[in-house]
Amino acid sequence: MSPSSLDELIDALRGLPGVGPKSAQRMAYHLLQRDQRGAERLARALGNALAVLRHCERCNTFTETEICQRCASPQRDASLLCVVEMPADLAVIEQTHAYNGLYYVLMGRLSPLDGIGPRELKFDKLLARVADSTVQEVILATNFTNEGEATAHIVAELLAARGIRVSRLSRGVPVGGELEHTDTGTIAQALVERRPL
Amino acid sequence: MSPSSLDELIDALRGLPGVGPKSAQRMAYHLLQRDQRGAERLARALGNALAVLRHCERCNTFTETEICQRCASPQRDASLLCVVEMPADLAVIEQTHAYNGLYYVLMGRLSPLDGIGPRELKFDKLLARVADSTVQEVILATNFTNEGEATAHIVAELLAARGIRVSRLSRGVPVGGELEHTDTGTIAQALVERRPL
Repeated sequence: MSPSSLDELIDALRGLPGVGPKSAQRMAYHLLQRDQRGAERLARALGNALAVLRHCERCNTFTETEICQRCASPQRDASLLCVVEMPADLAVIEQTHAYNGLYYVLMGRLSPLDGIGPRELKFDKLLARVADSTVQEVILATNFTNEGEATAHIVAELLAARGIRVSRLSRGVPVGGELEHTDTGTIAQALVERRPL
Repeated sequence: MSPSSLDELIDALRGLPGVGPKSAQRMAYHLLQRDQRGAERLARALGNALAVLRHCERCNTFTETEICQRCASPQRDASLLCVVEMPADLAVIEQTHAYNGLYYVLMGRLSPLDGIGPRELKFDKLLARVADSTVQEVILATNFTNEGEATAHIVAELLAARGIRVSRLSRGVPVGGELEHTDTGTIAQALVERRPL
């Protein structure tokens, strides 16, 4: 009985990650009943983003130009290349102010169950990027999840085969963390990877 | 550093109910990276819904025609009018198969804190609808939350002042519960045991 353009909107909203049928319904009612301007704005933002955004030729992140501002900046240390999964990871590393090199954003992680393999992650583009001889070291900063670790492992092998120096973010007890409240796996890693002082 | 059309999309997604900054970011990345067709579909569905959907002249629910199918149906008992907050509530009552009357959808509830008063809920439209002398009884089926109860109270007073018989779903619905999340058996019981106000 409910009108099909409403069903179609609810269906389209269900395509968003983490949105089930109830949330999609609530969102649709909210947009149509309480926030039509928000709905117009969202439709416009989607159309605009689809039309305007592309991937940086160098670091693969979202950008509106051929090469993103960061990659084009002469202030960054071009000898370091940090590989992350998503732009959100890049943003967190930037917030540390502890890194001034460049990035490469995979836009995902190896995830065979979701059909995301080396081809989907465009490892070719990463390898082409690294072929640039200014890159002295690649720092793998994928997540420490199973999928992130697997991704780091494969990328490390590909890069090592090309004679490129590769490192990985260290694993260990978080800063401010207490051993008592740290999982044993992390503590075991911190023991194995203990650093000489 | 991040491109403004991406920020604008993330901002627009944050306008959805229940979506915070992290979810909005994840949604934007997902749409742009993994599901551009889903993004196009959502933009189109939003535009189409905004263009096509309106409120039924009689029951106020979303419809693509002047009067919705249900209100136009000769199979429904026009002497009964059930007042609900949202289309989702209407759908749940329909699922009980315990009611064959018509509906009026308030599209909300009194909520002074959100700036939703009698004017926003268009009580005038409800009163005009009820002025139709075929309506013998109005069943108030707003939620049993504080706001839903307050809404029922005000509507009951308005209708009683016009000499219209008013009833309320019985308290088979748990106090503080919402129709949308109640099992159909309980709702059917509450329909049968509705009490005159």
